Amino acid sequence: MTALEKLRDGGTAIGTFGMIDGTLSVEGLARAGFDFVCLDRQHGLLDDATVWNQIVAIGKAGKACPWVRIPWNRPEDAMRALDGGATGIVAPMIGSRAEAEALVRACRYPPMGERSWGPIRAGMNDPVFYTETANDSIFVAAMIETRGGFDNLEEIASTPGLDAIFVGPNDLSFAISSWQPGMPTHTDFLDDLRRIAEVATANGKIPGIHCADAAMARAARGWGYRFMTVGADIGFMVQAAKATVLDARK
Amino acid sequence: MTALEKLRDGGTAIGTFGMIDGTLSVEGLARAGFDFVCLDRQHGLLDDATVWNQIVAIGKAGKACPWVRIPWNRPEDAMRALDGGATGIVAPMIGSRAEAEALVRACRYPPMGERSWGPIRAGMNDPVFYTETANDSIFVAAMIETRGGFDNLEEIASTPGLDAIFVGPNDLSFAISSWQPGMPTHTDFLDDLRRIAEVATANGKIPGIHCADAAMARAARGWGYRFMTVGADIGFMVQAAKATVLDARK
Amino acid sequence: MTALEKLRDGGTAIGTFGMIDGTLSVEGLARAGFDFVCLDRQHGLLDDATVWNQIVAIGKAGKACPWVRIPWNRPEDAMRALDGGATGIVAPMIGSRAEAEALVRACRYPPMGERSWGPIRAGMNDPVFYTETANDSIFVAAMIETRGGFDNLEEIASTPGLDAIFVGPNDLSFAISSWQPGMPTHTDFLDDLRRIAEVATANGKIPGIHCADAAMARAARGWGYRFMTVGADIGFMVQAAKATVLDARK
Amino acid sequence: MTALEKLRDGGTAIGTFGMIDGTLSVEGLARAGFDFVCLDRQHGLLDDATVWNQIVAIGKAGKACPWVRIPWNRPEDAMRALDGGATGIVAPMIGSRAEAEALVRACRYPPMGERSWGPIRAGMNDPVFYTETANDSIFVAAMIETRGGFDNLEEIASTPGLDAIFVGPNDLSFAISSWQPGMPTHTDFLDDLRRIAEVATANGKIPGIHCADAAMARAARGWGYRFMTVGADIGFMVQAAKATVLDARK
Amino acid sequence: MTALEKLRDGGTAIGTFGMIDGTLSVEGLARAGFDFVCLDRQHGLLDDATVWNQIVAIGKAGKACPWVRIPWNRPEDAMRALDGGATGIVAPMIGSRAEAEALVRACRYPPMGERSWGPIRAGMNDPVFYTETANDSIFVAAMIETRGGFDNLEEIASTPGLDAIFVGPNDLSFAISSWQPGMPTHTDFLDDLRRIAEVATANGKIPGIHCADAAMARAARGWGYRFMTVGADIGFMVQAAKATVLDARK
Amino acid sequence: MTALEKLRDGGTAIGTFGMIDGTLSVEGLARAGFDFVCLDRQHGLLDDATVWNQIVAIGKAGKACPWVRIPWNRPEDAMRALDGGATGIVAPMIGSRAEAEALVRACRYPPMGERSWGPIRAGMNDPVFYTETANDSIFVAAMIETRGGFDNLEEIASTPGLDAIFVGPNDLSFAISSWQPGMPTHTDFLDDLRRIAEVATANGKIPGIHCADAAMARAARGWGYRFMTVGADIGFMVQAAKATVLDARK
Ligand SMILES: [Mg+2]
Ligand SMILES: [Mg+2]
Ligand SMILES: [Mg+2]
Ligand SMILES: [Mg+2]
Ligand SMILES: [Mg+2]
Ligand SMILES: [Mg+2]
Repeated sequence: MTALEKLRDGGTAIGTFGMIDGTLSVEGLARAGFDFVCLDRQHGLLDDATVWNQIVAIGKAGKACPWVRIPWNRPEDAMRALDGGATGIVAPMIGSRAEAEALVRACRYPPMGERSWGPIRAGMNDPVFYTETANDSIFVAAMIETRGGFDNLEEIASTPGLDAIFVGPNDLSFAISSWQPGMPTHTDFLDDLRRIAEVATANGKIPGIHCADAAMARAARGWGYRFMTVGADIGFMVQAAKATVLDARK
Repeated sequence: MTALEKLRDGGTAIGTFGMIDGTLSVEGLARAGFDFVCLDRQHGLLDDATVWNQIVAIGKAGKACPWVRIPWNRPEDAMRALDGGATGIVAPMIGSRAEAEALVRACRYPPMGERSWGPIRAGMNDPVFYTETANDSIFVAAMIETRGGFDNLEEIASTPGLDAIFVGPNDLSFAISSWQPGMPTHTDFLDDLRRIAEVATANGKIPGIHCADAAMARAARGWGYRFMTVGADIGFMVQAAKATVLDARK
Repeated sequence: MTALEKLRDGGTAIGTFGMIDGTLSVEGLARAGFDFVCLDRQHGLLDDATVWNQIVAIGKAGKACPWVRIPWNRPEDAMRALDGGATGIVAPMIGSRAEAEALVRACRYPPMGERSWGPIRAGMNDPVFYTETANDSIFVAAMIETRGGFDNLEEIASTPGLDAIFVGPNDLSFAISSWQPGMPTHTDFLDDLRRIAEVATANGKIPGIHCADAAMARAARGWGYRFMTVGADIGFMVQAAKATVLDARK
Repeated sequence: MTALEKLRDGGTAIGTFGMIDGTLSVEGLARAGFDFVCLDRQHGLLDDATVWNQIVAIGKAGKACPWVRIPWNRPEDAMRALDGGATGIVAPMIGSRAEAEALVRACRYPPMGERSWGPIRAGMNDPVFYTETANDSIFVAAMIETRGGFDNLEEIASTPGLDAIFVGPNDLSFAISSWQPGMPTHTDFLDDLRRIAEVATANGKIPGIHCADAAMARAARGWGYRFMTVGADIGFMVQAAKATVLDARK
Repeated sequence: MTALEKLRDGGTAIGTFGMIDGTLSVEGLARAGFDFVCLDRQHGLLDDATVWNQIVAIGKAGKACPWVRIPWNRPEDAMRALDGGATGIVAPMIGSRAEAEALVRACRYPPMGERSWGPIRAGMNDPVFYTETANDSIFVAAMIETRGGFDNLEEIASTPGLDAIFVGPNDLSFAISSWQPGMPTHTDFLDDLRRIAEVATANGKIPGIHCADAAMARAARGWGYRFMTVGADIGFMVQAAKATVLDARK
Repeated sequence: MTALEKLRDGGTAIGTFGMIDGTLSVEGLARAGFDFVCLDRQHGLLDDATVWNQIVAIGKAGKACPWVRIPWNRPEDAMRALDGGATGIVAPMIGSRAEAEALVRACRYPPMGERSWGPIRAGMNDPVFYTETANDSIFVAAMIETRGGFDNLEEIASTPGLDAIFVGPNDLSFAISSWQPGMPTHTDFLDDLRRIAEVATANGKIPGIHCADAAMARAARGWGYRFMTVGADIGFMVQAAKATVLDARK
């Protein structure tokens, strides 16, 4: 069952971000129990070639879905990640209905969209089957994390062909409130987060949010969210390394 | 104070292995509190070019010493890691005095050894100063982890120019006892580990050992060891990731 | 004689796509008898650095012209491929006259266009000669393969400074008819293909088309086309490999 | 004292371009006495991953500031260079006030701009400190080198949040006069260069210019410029290599 | 059923060489019907990092076994390929019993051999299971292709722990006869090839041979061979490309 | 005329070392007027893949011969550089006749040597022609720079199949005298250098030496040397960069 199938089934999906410029790291993430690993080409140190190899490493592990956060809402970056085998696209900083529609067009084959045909790695096993099923099996999420995205939430959330609304709380708090990385604490901001989940759900879109840690992920379910990225590879590594070195020096 | 200075001073040094084929990961390790990061070209997915970039990333963090475990006891691999800026060389599977002497020759400039001159990155800042101080500031360790190394311990430990004896307990248990990854439990094997530390110390060599976790590192101090690698980047990441995903699903 | 010279001379040019992330593969293509090798940054697994090395490998073989299909109609991608030594640019999914003009501007130095000056590798041998001859010797093709491109064909085909109209039949059939990879069979679609070649020719543009195989390339000449990409490296390899393994098992 | 601090202090800053696809080369530049090294993703053979490693190499040398010329005025390229540790962004071919404002938005956190938060490498040492100080410590320059930029100079130069106006004389001469690489000689063009420096200064922006060599850099100070890139790594290398080989053959 | 299982079962296994420095190419080979793909680090343009990514790509395809021909009979190269997930090791130019024994030691864990423990990627899924089963499931072949190997065939073929004798007919003909790439034609040399297969079989080793094409692979079965590499990726690609371009020009 | 042909003709050949991990840098060297560029895998930051791409870049420039200094006297490193297109092999730290003979065996096809057949890139254009001419057209040099090499000079210099004796004066002075990088000044050491050139010449070998600069290269001709590496890419770059920045600040 893919993360998308789980979500369509009404379930919850837990993933994380891959930011390290390696393949072993994402293979480790893919075996750690997540439903998906989101390769972060926006803030991670990942270029095209790294991501293509990482998708293969995740695919070989055969457990988590390889999603890609593209650097910006550019059709070519979505298409190239998909051709390389990504099964989900997360686009940052979507600010308007037009941008959301452009995102969908880039990720869906005609007649739903305008994705260019050439699934070189994604369709290597069976290009016809891939082409016929891609529009339905690929997950597409628009990130709400700017003033524009917040103000145009309704229009964005009602975009046909979009699967999900994904909140970037760090950027959003920076844009509409005061920057507070980690667990949100301002009541107003929490209300905003609840409202976004509501609007998404009301428009048939799956609401998701990035979470600093497991506690926030559990809280986010209470705010109405159904998929969460929790932390990132580099954060996991540093956290456990710091604890270990302190413990070893005791 | 470098890890080697700390050790010469009678102190203890804690490090870990870098196995992930990335630069962000080792930069994270270098900031996590370790005295040194040992880039593992034996079992990690690291090739030359990756290691050269990783050494720079560790150097920029400016906290931990960049050591390299070479894939095998080959002079060119030691020299190339050193020219790239490594300040410590760990050679696996040393089985005899002749091998230990070859290791020292590769790591020391004349007249102590036969390291070829050309510290392209290591001496970029000041090649004359580097050349004059390298023999004294570079750490060289021979791993004892085979039947040969175990049987020839005395001869190896008395090799001039060698700084340390480093035990690989997984391989050693495989070679002389029965394989037991992690914390050693057989009494005989523990006695062997204590004896190796003793012989090393008696020969003026710093005894070190690889440890599965902090508990083993603390125990190893009791067995007479003074430097320890604890875990590895990929292990830290997977351990924290697994805990987080379980916690998030609660 | 370059592919462009052959085409200006009234001749036909045969090329293929490079999609494999290697340099040996394109060197093989460059020696196989093609007039040009089109490095596919749209659907192939090629990033910037790979393409720069591939262009050099093609250049060393000294037989085929190195063209690049850029991932999208972005000036920086055209310019960077050209600075790296590409002698042809193929831009996918051109949908309007404005897009075609932007493409030309990116590929031509002033006063014809606005290509930024800095032919770091392309002009390494003789930057003045390169700069004076680049506008005339670089091939620029706009792909017609979307509904927009099809509807605005006349305006696109009459763009000054554009050399060629290049049809992507898979995408075009997806956009205006029903998807049919390989040899086109619908009469209407074949009429469309013939008309595109006619309009291109009437506007002084060289008509080209991607072909699944040699049979389609021969047919395409009958439809009025003068340059063809036939297949791709990965397709050639798999086709011959499959035949060989079957044959070997007999 | 960073290059930006020097400039704010009323001083002059001298830098150069890194175009070679290596890390050793920029490390050499960083130790050669420059105030900054500008990694050229526009015309140099540098992709994302190369630049990330180069920034680390410059940072380790600890002397020059790592700036990046992005391939085009795209927010994601500015943000990714900054997240990787660049402390200056140079955007080529800025043609209008709107483009200059977009550049500033990409490089500044809210409320000054809309830079997305996630300073993975830049803020690794202390993310809070980085976030609070980034807007003030990061240098942002718009290149004036097209007809549009020249005509809209006043509007561009008065853009809030922009630090500097940087002239690309090769492209500018190509666009508004006749192409003349190297030292400008036409009186009209020299007047234009003086005027640009004046307008920049009058608008509180630091005027800078690319210079072919040291002689031009000295002249540029007389034209009113305060920061200069002089030459590039590949040019330095070839110039000295040619002189040496001729000298050796004497 | 792995290639080794097929061979132990008395069957025949057909593979090929991967020489292109790409990942897409080997993925294509892995789906073309071969029992194994032998990544050629001896003559192919493959370095460590490329091979590690290629092994993952083959693994993801899930059909062919990833074998590696190491550049030379060095324990570290065998171990690193195995740690990266290779399931077969082919060592070139084995010339003596001592060399064959060293090869086996490098590929087998104690007590059969001295492979160092650390199956970072190979054992990622289940390190204990991997460690317990590796000695039995990993294929180890010694190439007979030098004068020394030919003269010492009996001693080599009787080496415990070795699975197979693999003939390199190009090198062997160069060494003991006159160089004849492709199908062997000299009667004496054919007799030699038959004798090698016989000696291997008599010593319980699986006889294999490299074949230029399918015809030679069929013939080789008649000479007594049970596993064959047929051709290589670059050869397949060039052969089909040449045929296509000729056909397209008709 | 290749560097080897020039030398056989009684002429002098001037080259330099490539140490920067880039392709643009060596392309620059290849166009600067040198007879050969020696890619330094011993002290430069060059791995296999970098060197393979660098050889192609040099080949495309079409002027200088691509030689490779291998990291150590290992047959596989010589063979892989040659298969990738190197036309000269320089082996460091040759200490005995046996080592010199092993070097020749690795670089020459039978019956002269035991180079394994598979010139994947070197023979791509015409494998039969390459195979028939390689033994005569490939340059093989043994470096004399250790105590062993110095003491065994006669035996080494008389090795059949070796083309040249190449002195590393920095290492040699370190080994037999006191370290003095740059122009040798001790009278005894100069006598040693003259004697090495004499012995080489008397044994029909071309004498060569590494030179810090052009002045030393000119002096070396007076000592009897006929080929010289002068400086290295990184040195050229830094030297010209330092001069420029000082000059620009005047
Ligand atoms: Mg965000
Ligand atoms: Mg071990
Ligand atoms: Mg298309
Ligand atoms: Mg410019
Ligand atoms: Mg062979
Ligand atoms: Mg030397």
